[in-house]
Amino acid sequence: MEQAAWLWYPGDFELYHAMKQNFSRVERGCQWPAFWKSEGFRNRVAFRRVYHLDRETSFTVFGVKGAAGYVQLGEEKHPLGTAIRCPQGTWRISVHIACIGCVPAIYVQGEIIRSDRGWMVEDFDRDPVPAAQNRYFTDPNRDPSEWAFTERVYEPCAVEAVNGGTLYTFETELTAALELQWQGEPPLVTLGESRAEALDTENCYFHCRPDPETGRCPRQALRFAFVPGRSPETIKARAIHQYVDIPVKAEFRCEDEELNRIFSVAAHTFMLCSGAFFLDGVKRDKWIWGGDAYQSLFVNRYLTGDREIEKRTLIALRGNDPMTTHVNTILDYSLLWILSVDAYYESYGDRDFVDFLWTKMESLMELCLSQREEHGFVVGRKRDWVFIDWADFDRDGPLCAEQMLLAEALRVMADFAPEGEEDRWLRERNALLEQIEACYWDEEKGAYVDSFTSGRRNVTRHANIFAILFDVADGERKRRLTRTVLFNDAVPAITTPYFRFFELEALCRLGYLEKVLEEIKAYWGGMLRQGAVTFWEQFDPAKAPEEQYEMYGDPYGKSLCHAWAASPIYLLARYFLGLRPVTPGGAEYELRPRTDLLKSCKASFPMGGKVLHFAVDNGILTVEEL
Amino acid sequence: MEQAAWLWYPGDFELYHAMKQNFSRVERGCQWPAFWKSEGFRNRVAFRRVYHLDRETSFTVFGVKGAAGYVQLGEEKHPLGTAIRCPQGTWRISVHIACIGCVPAIYVQGEIIRSDRGWMVEDFDRDPVPAAQNRYFTDPNRDPSEWAFTERVYEPCAVEAVNGGTLYTFETELTAALELQWQGEPPLVTLGESRAEALDTENCYFHCRPDPETGRCPRQALRFAFVPGRSPETIKARAIHQYVDIPVKAEFRCEDEELNRIFSVAAHTFMLCSGAFFLDGVKRDKWIWGGDAYQSLFVNRYLTGDREIEKRTLIALRGNDPMTTHVNTILDYSLLWILSVDAYYESYGDRDFVDFLWTKMESLMELCLSQREEHGFVVGRKRDWVFIDWADFDRDGPLCAEQMLLAEALRVMADFAPEGEEDRWLRERNALLEQIEACYWDEEKGAYVDSFTSGRRNVTRHANIFAILFDVADGERKRRLTRTVLFNDAVPAITTPYFRFFELEALCRLGYLEKVLEEIKAYWGGMLRQGAVTFWEQFDPAKAPEEQYEMYGDPYGKSLCHAWAASPIYLLARYFLGLRPVTPGGAEYELRPRTDLLKSCKASFPMGGKVLHFAVDNGILTVEEL
Repeated sequence: MEQAAWLWYPGDFELYHAMKQNFSRVERGCQWPAFWKSEGFRNRVAFRRVYHLDRETSFTVFGVKGAAGYVQLGEEKHPLGTAIRCPQGTWRISVHIACIGCVPAIYVQGEIIRSDRGWMVEDFDRDPVPAAQNRYFTDPNRDPSEWAFTERVYEPCAVEAVNGGTLYTFETELTAALELQWQGEPPLVTLGESRAEALDTENCYFHCRPDPETGRCPRQALRFAFVPGRSPETIKARAIHQYVDIPVKAEFRCEDEELNRIFSVAAHTFMLCSGAFFLDGVKRDKWIWGGDAYQSLFVNRYLTGDREIEKRTLIALRGNDPMTTHVNTILDYSLLWILSVDAYYESYGDRDFVDFLWTKMESLMELCLSQREEHGFVVGRKRDWVFIDWADFDRDGPLCAEQMLLAEALRVMADFAPEGEEDRWLRERNALLEQIEACYWDEEKGAYVDSFTSGRRNVTRHANIFAILFDVADGERKRRLTRTVLFNDAVPAITTPYFRFFELEALCRLGYLEKVLEEIKAYWGGMLRQGAVTFWEQFDPAKAPEEQYEMYGDPYGKSLCHAWAASPIYLLARYFLGLRPVTPGGAEYELRPRTDLLKSCKASFPMGGKVLHFAVDNGILTVEEL
Repeated sequence: MEQAAWLWYPGDFELYHAMKQNFSRVERGCQWPAFWKSEGFRNRVAFRRVYHLDRETSFTVFGVKGAAGYVQLGEEKHPLGTAIRCPQGTWRISVHIACIGCVPAIYVQGEIIRSDRGWMVEDFDRDPVPAAQNRYFTDPNRDPSEWAFTERVYEPCAVEAVNGGTLYTFETELTAALELQWQGEPPLVTLGESRAEALDTENCYFHCRPDPETGRCPRQALRFAFVPGRSPETIKARAIHQYVDIPVKAEFRCEDEELNRIFSVAAHTFMLCSGAFFLDGVKRDKWIWGGDAYQSLFVNRYLTGDREIEKRTLIALRGNDPMTTHVNTILDYSLLWILSVDAYYESYGDRDFVDFLWTKMESLMELCLSQREEHGFVVGRKRDWVFIDWADFDRDGPLCAEQMLLAEALRVMADFAPEGEEDRWLRERNALLEQIEACYWDEEKGAYVDSFTSGRRNVTRHANIFAILFDVADGERKRRLTRTVLFNDAVPAITTPYFRFFELEALCRLGYLEKVLEEIKAYWGGMLRQGAVTFWEQFDPAKAPEEQYEMYGDPYGKSLCHAWAASPIYLLARYFLGLRPVTPGGAEYELRPRTDLLKSCKASFPMGGKVLHFAVDNGILTVEEL
């Protein structure tokens, strides 16, 4: 029998938990809620279902904490939380529920009448829709107001007396509630992603005192915990790692131990950043960013194949209509959100979810198109952030890279448009491509320039990488861009791992896998050689380990566990194993392993709802589907 | 020095408290949240202000319960709740705040830097606007998450041993937390608006047990409280009346004691129903209904002259854009909401608030206009409630009374439209009036018929009353409608006090004040003669007192304290004293007392920001403005 679960209006659970997530950042005692428009969920809904009972039964309806409501059975009203007897016959049941502080959710407990699939929900606006649920909320005692984390206890791997206090070191970074035993007053605890940070009681990001009743500190990113002024004999600590249980389905082992270690550290990094949603990092920002999430989709496809976190993230990022501001305020993140829907569909072939999102895709695209200047190029409005990357673009007039994203987003719109509506999007795309060619392509430089209005003809990598990835350039021009941009040292290097992802993918597409392998070993291998147990937001191989923690002008500002640093998983699976879905969802897939580069290797990756187990042995490939 | 107050984004306080209000109905243990689309407030805002300090000062910022945020002073971040030192100089202060469960509000405590007027607030969408506040939230320890009621203790005026228990009677109806002292287990308490209801422990609306710590029951409407199974010696009770302190500015005393009593009972009834918002009733529904509120505006103009409750109610009713459903789901209530803005403006001449509402008026009117059929008449959609009144209308095709409301709402739109935009609304109105004349006017019957599609030519009073009130009919036709409809017994009588308000006003407009006075004394006097201490939702003089409590098929379903029953206040002030604003806001007003009917009378009414004190003595009027 299908398990009962908490039910809510589709999408509202995600909007509620997205706010909880985006408001949860705390740094040096300051709570720092994300700085974009945030609005809530439906506060009043009704769940309905008709049962045909061949015998008497009874059921009880529970509401989420703080909810007000009642159950209507035929003509009679019953309070929530009471057992309701329901005689044989045909019964229409309505559960009315309202909640201000939390998504209004219900749980129906009973032998026959229960909150399994089959309930409809309405919001007093649109036609009823099937109620939503997820696998993490099946316990009537753990309602959706708080995320139900899975817990795992980590004992410290080292306990040291340092600077008159006690330093606890854990084997890796965790998102944990530190649990302490002490005598007297609850002690001060300082946490760190690095040993240096935990010991720097002045400048570390997190300090706290354990709750006297539970002994626990709030859930935070930590690898090191320091208790100043207490000796190791007087105190005990362990970490209760709290995570969302998403099974990892990928494995990778080859002859190169460094590459193996890169894969496993990338996987650990990625899973720490994958909770209710794809986050950028676990210490900072703990926010749901559209650009970061876009890249996470590609890693997740090959690491867990869990579509649910992708759906939650896509819903959370997009928010409610009317669409008046961009995803995270960033124009390019709005466009990347549309590309994300395409990536999701390629991974899972889940047309239902794309249909659920379609009106949201439309209203977001309409917002973008409403911001075009006279050539048809999208530009930022006051308060819009035109980001693309931390780089010195020539930002005079419309920025070229944004137009590349818009062209690709229009391709996605055309792909998913209802029959008869594709043409509009294709026409828009073709007109835009012509204008890009006319305004941004610089034949002499053999590259797309940032700006056509300034006359400076400045070339950066970004727009040119997008031109390769999104087929704005044709085959011949792509090859030319390799020379004029990708392998041209006169064009400033990409400095962020965020855009390195796009650059490395472009190199892979063009077949430069040896070069990419070299880069992976240098950059990610470089972090390992500096002692990384998770991959960092940014890495400068020229700096010593103790100089690695500073960023944004903050001595410990750099996140040492950042999702966008997990891209080797994707690159290895997609280009080195050569595995990709051919039909959306991957029921049909392609496998073209570069056995010249991976001479001997064992790997597993999810694909098409199965897990594929590969073995490459001296250039011979065997595959098993499980 | 101006007092500091809690600050929020304009309108959001009202949306939050409107949900609290509309979700607060409880009946026989069932919570019954209002059955219309309910959505929230902005969850993330930032307050900003620049100070030029000629000396050092310090300040502390508090957030509403459950909020996350920080204070930015120049480049530095500070936690909420900490004293922040601010040296001499020019400082830009930003308070960032997010809250899911409550309107994100702040309080700034300090000598110079404080949350008085001058702060701007932004929502990361639109340009910053001045922050809002109200006079009930000036205490840093009472944040806007809960309404700060004023309390007044009422001792029971009678304590009786009845049916083996104790019955407490209070001098009048209250919205009170009953406070008890008892021995042993907390006793069951049953409440009633009537003695019969409180003693009917099976069927009464409210039963509860006092909180063991505070001794208090939840705030509820009550005049009678019964404690079954406990004798008067073993228990004590008093009522803590909890109300929003809105000073009554009106008085009325004439030679007719019954009329005096009608005025004072109407005033008490109205004030009980006027809290954070205008409610329909205090026992039931405790919801904010647009039609009821429209009428309350007219009573309130003459009773308290408090514009703040009107603003709160208008904001609460209208809710957020996009406008996809009608006010309370009712088409006519949407139109009455637009008329309400006009009534508000007539009372207070407050153009700023109308400007604040203008885009909301527009989007609501656009929704209504989007629902027109081929003749240009507005019709209900699936899920819309076309109400007008509880009456037997011929509901075939568009309903005439709705078109009358639409015509008047278009007049209001034209009145308030920005310069150059009036014409559109006037054109719409004129076209509609022509169609009304062509389709609904029945020359033979000398009346507007309900439906022009059915061929039944059914006449009810409603559309014809609106035609008189909204000048759809000209002077001659109005006189004709008096004969053919108002004084025509063949046209079914109005049965609800709701529509009696419109009918009596139409009679007043046409000069039938003796008739209206007779009606007031018969209907409202009739309730008094049956022992009413507050006026009822409905009254049938033919029924005995003990038969008065039933309504909607429920033995105690009728509300015995209902705002729409307070209309004598308006009728007496507006038509018998003849007091009305001539310029919006009433700086210039007209006074035409019917000294033939009120031979000797003392009265006070608010007008134009002052209180006018009248004395009529043997046909001679004296007026004092204070």
